Amino acid sequence: MISDIYDVIHRRRDVRSQFTGEPITADALDRILTAAHAAPSVGLSQPWDFIVIRDRGLRESFHRHVQAERDTFAAGLDAEARDRFSRIEIDGVLESTLSIVVTYDADRGGPTVLGRHTIADAGLYSVCLAIQNLWLAATAEHFGVGWVSFYREQFLQKLLDIPTPIRPVAWLCLGPITHLQPVPDLERHGWRQRRSLQTAIHSNRWSPRPATT
Amino acid sequence: MISDIYDVIHRRRDVRSQFTGEPITADALDRILTAAHAAPSVGLSQPWDFIVIRDRGLRESFHRHVQAERDTFAAGLDAEARDRFSRIEIDGVLESTLSIVVTYDADRGGPTVLGRHTIADAGLYSVCLAIQNLWLAATAEHFGVGWVSFYREQFLQKLLDIPTPIRPVAWLCLGPITHLQPVPDLERHGWRQRRSLQTAIHSNRWSPRPATT
Repeated sequence: MISDIYDVIHRRRDVRSQFTGEPITADALDRILTAAHAAPSVGLSQPWDFIVIRDRGLRESFHRHVQAERDTFAAGLDAEARDRFSRIEIDGVLESTLSIVVTYDADRGGPTVLGRHTIADAGLYSVCLAIQNLWLAATAEHFGVGWVSFYREQFLQKLLDIPTPIRPVAWLCLGPITHLQPVPDLERHGWRQRRSLQTAIHSNRWSPRPATT
Repeated sequence: MISDIYDVIHRRRDVRSQFTGEPITADALDRILTAAHAAPSVGLSQPWDFIVIRDRGLRESFHRHVQAERDTFAAGLDAEARDRFSRIEIDGVLESTLSIVVTYDADRGGPTVLGRHTIADAGLYSVCLAIQNLWLAATAEHFGVGWVSFYREQFLQKLLDIPTPIRPVAWLCLGPITHLQPVPDLERHGWRQRRSLQTAIHSNRWSPRPATT
């Protein structure tokens, strides 16, 4: 099966509502995790781990936590924004086939990780590169991925027995979907518009731009 | 042109020594930056910017800084590691066609970025997802990308007039190359071996593993 990379990059969406809950074959999951694991990493430290979560009870506990954090966020919005927010799905934890929590181990690679002495966050950056590989591979497999951000790291560490130095970076919902939306949910629901690429490009040095919100 | 995503993900390398310095067409650069800009972002904040650096003087200044940081790192190694490190190239700033600095603007998206109230670093994560899109698109275009980590953020902010709240996340060398190495440089030079995927996978909860360095 050939999946053109540009097609995948542009079709990819952050999925909340379109999960079907159908099974994922072991082969497909292996291809997706192998792609994640092939990401670049500072000093070849590969500081990521992948916790594959199928357990229903764990997913229900996480989902309750996410809903509570949703209420906290909504309480800080003005009435008009709260109304728009009420129409936006923020997770597909219970509807998707499984979840993958991606973690960061800052101790991986020993005390002298090549390239990390100057930039403390470089290991964290590597974990994110693995996440994007995972996301694109899953899209190529015709699955959806939804990155859930409405959680506290400490809650997740406790729920999944993640020891203290290791940090959860993402909770990703994964599975077959009915379809991918052509327009991101937040744009469809009038939360926020995408900016044009031209406003993001600078030549040689930073050039001040009209403020974008 | 069709580039299979799995092929690109597995061929991709962090390039230092194989740059030819040949030109990049405006169309190819546009496809690469458009791919980066299509990355997911927390709350659709798209907090990245891309500074495209062709200026020779800027690249020479940066290269001198990188070499000084290389010396600092080498001074902290024992004799055996220093000897291995001496054979490793850490950048292709002067040999590559151009560089792209990718930055993070934490103020983009206003005070209430949807999904960022719980995780302060979520915007930084988004920038890294854009970097991986860029890297894969460049690989599909048969270019090399090399992420240089041997620099201080403050040096780069001053060199490129990047205002204080905005943070440089990556200096990426980009351009045509002679070839991609089948094995990562750090593994070829005996600095570090890759770990197997199986050591990175956990089921439902974190499972302690034999310590890996």
